[in-house]
Amino acid sequence: MWIWYPGDMELFFALKQNFSRVERGVGWPAFWKSEAFRQRIVLRRTYRLAAETSFTVYANADSVGFVLVGEKKYPFGKPIICGPGEVKISIHLGSIPTFPAAFIEGAVIRSDENWMAEDYAGDPVPVGHSPYFVDRCQDPSEWPYEEKMICPAKVEEVNQGLLFTFETELTALPELEYPHGYRACRLYIGETKAEALDTDNCYSFCDPGEDGLCPKNAVHYVFIPSCKKGDVLLRARQQFVDIPVRAEFHCDNEKLNRIWKVAEHTFRLCSGIFFLDGVKRDRWIWGGDAYQSMQVNQYLFGDPEINRRTMRALFGNVPAVTHINTITDYSMLCIIGVREHAEVYGDLDFLKEMYPKMRSLMELCLTQTEENGFFTGGPKDWVYIDWAEFDREGPLCAEQMLLARCCQAMAECCIMLQECDSALPAQGEPTKNLQLRQDLDRYTRKYQVLKEKIDQFYWDEEKGAYIDSFVSGKRNVTRHANIFAIRFDLADEAKKERIVKNVLQNNNVPAITTPYFRFFEQDALCMMGCLDQVLDTILSYWGGMLALGADTFWEEYDPQKPLEQQYEMYGDPFGKSMCHAWSASPIYLIGKYFLGLRISHETEEGYEIRPYHKAFQSVEAVLPAGNITVEIRW
Amino acid sequence: MWIWYPGDMELFFALKQNFSRVERGVGWPAFWKSEAFRQRIVLRRTYRLAAETSFTVYANADSVGFVLVGEKKYPFGKPIICGPGEVKISIHLGSIPTFPAAFIEGAVIRSDENWMAEDYAGDPVPVGHSPYFVDRCQDPSEWPYEEKMICPAKVEEVNQGLLFTFETELTALPELEYPHGYRACRLYIGETKAEALDTDNCYSFCDPGEDGLCPKNAVHYVFIPSCKKGDVLLRARQQFVDIPVRAEFHCDNEKLNRIWKVAEHTFRLCSGIFFLDGVKRDRWIWGGDAYQSMQVNQYLFGDPEINRRTMRALFGNVPAVTHINTITDYSMLCIIGVREHAEVYGDLDFLKEMYPKMRSLMELCLTQTEENGFFTGGPKDWVYIDWAEFDREGPLCAEQMLLARCCQAMAECCIMLQECDSALPAQGEPTKNLQLRQDLDRYTRKYQVLKEKIDQFYWDEEKGAYIDSFVSGKRNVTRHANIFAIRFDLADEAKKERIVKNVLQNNNVPAITTPYFRFFEQDALCMMGCLDQVLDTILSYWGGMLALGADTFWEEYDPQKPLEQQYEMYGDPFGKSMCHAWSASPIYLIGKYFLGLRISHETEEGYEIRPYHKAFQSVEAVLPAGNITVEIRW
Repeated sequence: MWIWYPGDMELFFALKQNFSRVERGVGWPAFWKSEAFRQRIVLRRTYRLAAETSFTVYANADSVGFVLVGEKKYPFGKPIICGPGEVKISIHLGSIPTFPAAFIEGAVIRSDENWMAEDYAGDPVPVGHSPYFVDRCQDPSEWPYEEKMICPAKVEEVNQGLLFTFETELTALPELEYPHGYRACRLYIGETKAEALDTDNCYSFCDPGEDGLCPKNAVHYVFIPSCKKGDVLLRARQQFVDIPVRAEFHCDNEKLNRIWKVAEHTFRLCSGIFFLDGVKRDRWIWGGDAYQSMQVNQYLFGDPEINRRTMRALFGNVPAVTHINTITDYSMLCIIGVREHAEVYGDLDFLKEMYPKMRSLMELCLTQTEENGFFTGGPKDWVYIDWAEFDREGPLCAEQMLLARCCQAMAECCIMLQECDSALPAQGEPTKNLQLRQDLDRYTRKYQVLKEKIDQFYWDEEKGAYIDSFVSGKRNVTRHANIFAIRFDLADEAKKERIVKNVLQNNNVPAITTPYFRFFEQDALCMMGCLDQVLDTILSYWGGMLALGADTFWEEYDPQKPLEQQYEMYGDPFGKSMCHAWSASPIYLIGKYFLGLRISHETEEGYEIRPYHKAFQSVEAVLPAGNITVEIRW
Repeated sequence: MWIWYPGDMELFFALKQNFSRVERGVGWPAFWKSEAFRQRIVLRRTYRLAAETSFTVYANADSVGFVLVGEKKYPFGKPIICGPGEVKISIHLGSIPTFPAAFIEGAVIRSDENWMAEDYAGDPVPVGHSPYFVDRCQDPSEWPYEEKMICPAKVEEVNQGLLFTFETELTALPELEYPHGYRACRLYIGETKAEALDTDNCYSFCDPGEDGLCPKNAVHYVFIPSCKKGDVLLRARQQFVDIPVRAEFHCDNEKLNRIWKVAEHTFRLCSGIFFLDGVKRDRWIWGGDAYQSMQVNQYLFGDPEINRRTMRALFGNVPAVTHINTITDYSMLCIIGVREHAEVYGDLDFLKEMYPKMRSLMELCLTQTEENGFFTGGPKDWVYIDWAEFDREGPLCAEQMLLARCCQAMAECCIMLQECDSALPAQGEPTKNLQLRQDLDRYTRKYQVLKEKIDQFYWDEEKGAYIDSFVSGKRNVTRHANIFAIRFDLADEAKKERIVKNVLQNNNVPAITTPYFRFFEQDALCMMGCLDQVLDTILSYWGGMLALGADTFWEEYDPQKPLEQQYEMYGDPFGKSMCHAWSASPIYLIGKYFLGLRISHETEEGYEIRPYHKAFQSVEAVLPAGNITVEIRW
């Protein structure tokens, strides 16, 4: 396998991913601190060899460096003989344009996860590696995408041009062929027919040269003006990361089956090397979106690898000096996300790797507080939560809910890591254990204090709900903080019941307008047992998109508007992403609450099933549960 | 001009430089934390336009991004029309393999030093730029070296091969021509004839292909075995940064004239994009070496640009998490170096740019102290000072001398920056001024406390000298701390006199063995008025190398050894660099003490001349003094 400094592979591909957005021919690199991989590393391991042995070290093409065996230097690419006895091997690598990586081939001495990596700044850490890079002939800076050639399902002459329709949306590179020789033409590439045909406003276009190649895009419809049948031929080179779908779902409600299928297709398109928000736009790695994708992943792929890759890309390097995507709440959702991942997949190695980064990001949060200890973020940070009208005077309640849950999550991480460390031989790392104990105390105390203060400052007894701000005196109630209070178990049961009645089922409190926060809302309603209400919402809201012909779910959907008004967003006539990961939440809701699979380490199997039989007459389903799959049917 | 985030250009070329060492065909990237340039930046400026105007933005080839004018996005490379009125322009750039940079062409709107840069982490800062990148057709990731084709001065058949001798040492790319068609041959490239002819031990070799090209090397002698006259033709493409020599020196002592010339040649070869230690080996950017090079530069080129480039490369990014080159004393010499540079060149802009980096590195130093406040470095840091036998039990005295001088230098920087800030309009940056005031107090106090404690713990009244360690009880005296006490004015005059007598002129105290520390020693002796002694040393020590045929000065020289024993170092028969920057110190010593030019802002001209007439019967000299040159003759 190829090995590298942990996180470097992800940071390299994240730069490529976050710089890949193109809007009407103009590149739009993501607007936040973009963290780089390391340029200079050492990979080390000591072997105790019973006999002489031979090995060869291969480095990525951009690397310069050498292999040190004992005191002697060797070049890359040539067999090295050593042993018997104790042999210390160090592989020194320097690489500028791509991350440094090595592949070690040999009968005994070979690359595996037991090598350690150093970067001349921190302590040695276990190397990074990936099941996608196990072949010596690979270039680790080229992702080994799966590819499939797809022909359009329909070609028709429209508006003096050619419209190509693919059976469904793809992430693909359009390829044009000129049977009568090259001719200049522009491809308008749309997620919808309306977009492809609107040559003034179509988001993506491409002017292929003689080779006919276009860059990767969200491809569903392609329109070429001033073109007749036979002038050109088009196919699409679909390029994707093949993450196996481990879940199956079929019930007696066909609409729900279709919702599952479309959510699955949507989610697969948005799951590449990383969890992306959408495939046309932004194609960026966003922390809040990724947090929700991790929940869907749990019930569809059950794939810990994409979680790890995405979280490594988002957290960047220690020390944390800015918030993830510049958004304070995204920083906190990612911290919570890693903690939940560690439990779902029993992934303590990853928790150990990420803990210093989570801790550094927590320090950033905990220093950005006002006099009561409430989190404000820094002057340039984006306190987002949701596209909604909050009373933003003073610290926002929903942010405090997240911070409290983060403190609790960090304390839980300390306990998990302590347990895993105490399983190590006694010579372990006493300083680290001491630090974990101190951290546990500190985060536990912070959590308790914060929880009490939130109730004291934000709970409005008269309204029976949490208010946005205690500073303004306006006592404004929105759904968001109240949803978090339920979802992150920050209110007592009596308060939760009152929230459901006074907020979640109260039409006077402005409705959630984004599928992003609708995810959290439905989740909270499920937790409070309002399953019938949630099932109705799934069937009407997601079913509503189906009724308008959707075969992927959208970034936003207003049931009040006709189809032709659905494409606009951010003031751009085709600005909306019509295939957006955060709209795949029905998979999570069905899996967790209707099929009822919960990961719970209090049970022997590591999971429990509490199905909601009322939801379906009959069901046949398979779900991933960590490393195993479970079948549920009734 | 091309503009970028300040420091990024230097960090990019420093990676290339520090990864360029090759030892017998094996790459050897420098073994310290190698800091990267930023991948994602914004360049911003607001114009108040009297009329409509047009401009075009060009980005470096690897960049993706766009130009934002008001609310509208434009691509690179096409004219943009805007104005009249206030126009906000932002240039968004993302680049992975090389640093992002832009060139803005227009009558009114154009790139210059008044643009600001952001990296989504820190505050906006003035852009970086360089007189070497002012042409739009340049690729800013390719340094525009000067080139000259040089033919060998002599070609002779030796040992069944061909020996090519160039008139002097060069930094050059050897190019082979095959008049009778390609033939495989290996070039042994030596700084000395002995090295080139020793095919088993020669440090550099190259196996050119059909194009005949070899990578850049230190080229003086080239030997090709199994080759006769006419088989191949060789020339060398000399590649260099043409930094004009502003100094001239000629006196009645021919040996001294020759020492100056050879020092000048040595120093020019070692001054490229950055100050390098040597041209064969290491070709790395070392902080301690660079500190001394800055002193020589002051009296030879008087070029502030190479100082800036080198210091940017060495300091890397904020926060400082490791010492420069992993060496504690190199961190401190660089801090002192920037402070001295600021005074010599009146370069407050650069001081302002570097202050946050110096401050961050100081924080690292000031947290690595033991109970008495003495600096120890971290567990993996290299407390170097010099290749010498110190008593290293507990904190080393010479390190405390440097830390004390650093505290004093930082306090002086605060005063300089305060003065320059108070010249700004009143709406300036009150927080920054407050921080500077606090820093000034803190560093001044630290300096005073440290100075007193050094005397209390390290001064040995009986020996009349500073001892290495107060912990071991051995009371070991070496020259180093005592030299620093004089050089950085940390002892009173009575103590200094005693140090000269008891240490510097005491043969029982082990002699300095490296030209590196000999630099500091001669400097201290000059400060104490021992000019005749120093002149003797220059003539005998540097003159000794000349007597052995040197046309560049060496990394190390032991006058006791015959020529054939001079090439070995670090256990490698040709490990010694025969052209080493730190051996160019005679230029500094002659300029500062014998011609007597000191930069002193207490005088109206900014300098004073206190020549030592006894040194020469007659002299004609020109020296740079900041932006002007002065002529000295008698």
